[in-house]
Amino acid sequence: MLDRMRIVLVETSHPGNIGAAARAMKTMSLTDLVLVRPKRFPDPQSFWRAAGGTDVLEGARVVETLEEAINDCHWVVATSARLRRIPWPVLTPQAFADAARAREGQKIAVLFGREDKGLNNDELQACHCHVEIPGNPEYPVLNLAMAVQVVAYELYQRHIGEPPPLVWDRPPATTTEFEGFLGHLESVLVNSAFLNPGSPGQTMTRLRRLFTRVDLDITEVAMLRGVLTQLDPGEGDRN
Amino acid sequence: MLDRMRIVLVETSHPGNIGAAARAMKTMSLTDLVLVRPKRFPDPQSFWRAAGGTDVLEGARVVETLEEAINDCHWVVATSARLRRIPWPVLTPQAFADAARAREGQKIAVLFGREDKGLNNDELQACHCHVEIPGNPEYPVLNLAMAVQVVAYELYQRHIGEPPPLVWDRPPATTTEFEGFLGHLESVLVNSAFLNPGSPGQTMTRLRRLFTRVDLDITEVAMLRGVLTQLDPGEGDRN
Repeated sequence: MLDRMRIVLVETSHPGNIGAAARAMKTMSLTDLVLVRPKRFPDPQSFWRAAGGTDVLEGARVVETLEEAINDCHWVVATSARLRRIPWPVLTPQAFADAARAREGQKIAVLFGREDKGLNNDELQACHCHVEIPGNPEYPVLNLAMAVQVVAYELYQRHIGEPPPLVWDRPPATTTEFEGFLGHLESVLVNSAFLNPGSPGQTMTRLRRLFTRVDLDITEVAMLRGVLTQLDPGEGDRN
Repeated sequence: MLDRMRIVLVETSHPGNIGAAARAMKTMSLTDLVLVRPKRFPDPQSFWRAAGGTDVLEGARVVETLEEAINDCHWVVATSARLRRIPWPVLTPQAFADAARAREGQKIAVLFGREDKGLNNDELQACHCHVEIPGNPEYPVLNLAMAVQVVAYELYQRHIGEPPPLVWDRPPATTTEFEGFLGHLESVLVNSAFLNPGSPGQTMTRLRRLFTRVDLDITEVAMLRGVLTQLDPGEGDRN
């Protein structure tokens, strides 16, 4: 879905923001950047701030009108924090990303307005809906490139779907291995008179609860048992 | 939950990034910023980039060691994009925000490392888990303040819970009002010979489907019927 997404920056003042937006796009695998009447572009500041997103910046298309930026798009949304006299349908970035994924095969444009005054009414009304990033009611004013980052982030999360599985370097312990360790531990605690088998209290329950919470892997079990054997060599032989 | 969250920036090089991070925090109602050995602070660049987040920047605490930054915290996480030899538990920003909300009453620190080389192994291992922002495998390198923005954004979304309800300026049309309009429309189409009542085809079904999709409000219904009456004054009288 990411190749169907276009980021459109309208009359951006600061070239640094254009570069930072390009970097933000790159980090989330977006590539289609269109600039409507940028104040200063190209500019060294853009390239400096783009860092590893230089290719996105170099591929940016500069146009004179919003129409040129969105003519071939099927769905156009505006990012906006402004309340308007005639309300427009509003989505959160997450709901927008869900909707964008569902619109298979559609070219989708996301508009970002001027640093100081956002998008004007004509531009806002050219959009099917508005995306508002919920934030501090007293100061919801994200920097332009930050807003691009948040929207791009949400799109990427929808693109990859479920979070990647946990990467681990050792297989998890089986129940047998886990119980072997706990039994070993208990024996050592009894041998050392830490635990009175006649009146054990909650000690083993609490230790069990502790170790179940950490999802021990086989190396960790072996290590812990190594420690126990070290501390109580006789018990290690018996288990 | 937001007042339990602390953002910790470790050995930040660029004062602009500190300011941008403060602004990002402010937009998401975070206020507790700690700087561990910043390279240049205070610095005019920080204040310029902080924009409306100046109060967060002014309230920032500068410390010499990571320990001072996190000693009073119950849960400490590190943001990181690096693969390490010994993997640590990893959360997405969303899963982290869920966990942070669940840890009622706990003070929680989120560590962000150096612009060029992140956090070192000692710092990473001081953390209970790592938060990784999923991104472009070829270039997952978010700017420091961008990473702060994404994490702060996720925390704020968990804080507010469900998205706010749709704001609209007019009550929705009732079924009676909606059907009144559709009936009016059909009459006008028949009168104008656009629709042949003997062989209507799918026209009305398609128009019905169109108008059901837009959730008409009462002003829109009145407007549309005004248009129909204008185009076919006789029919307006009859309905």
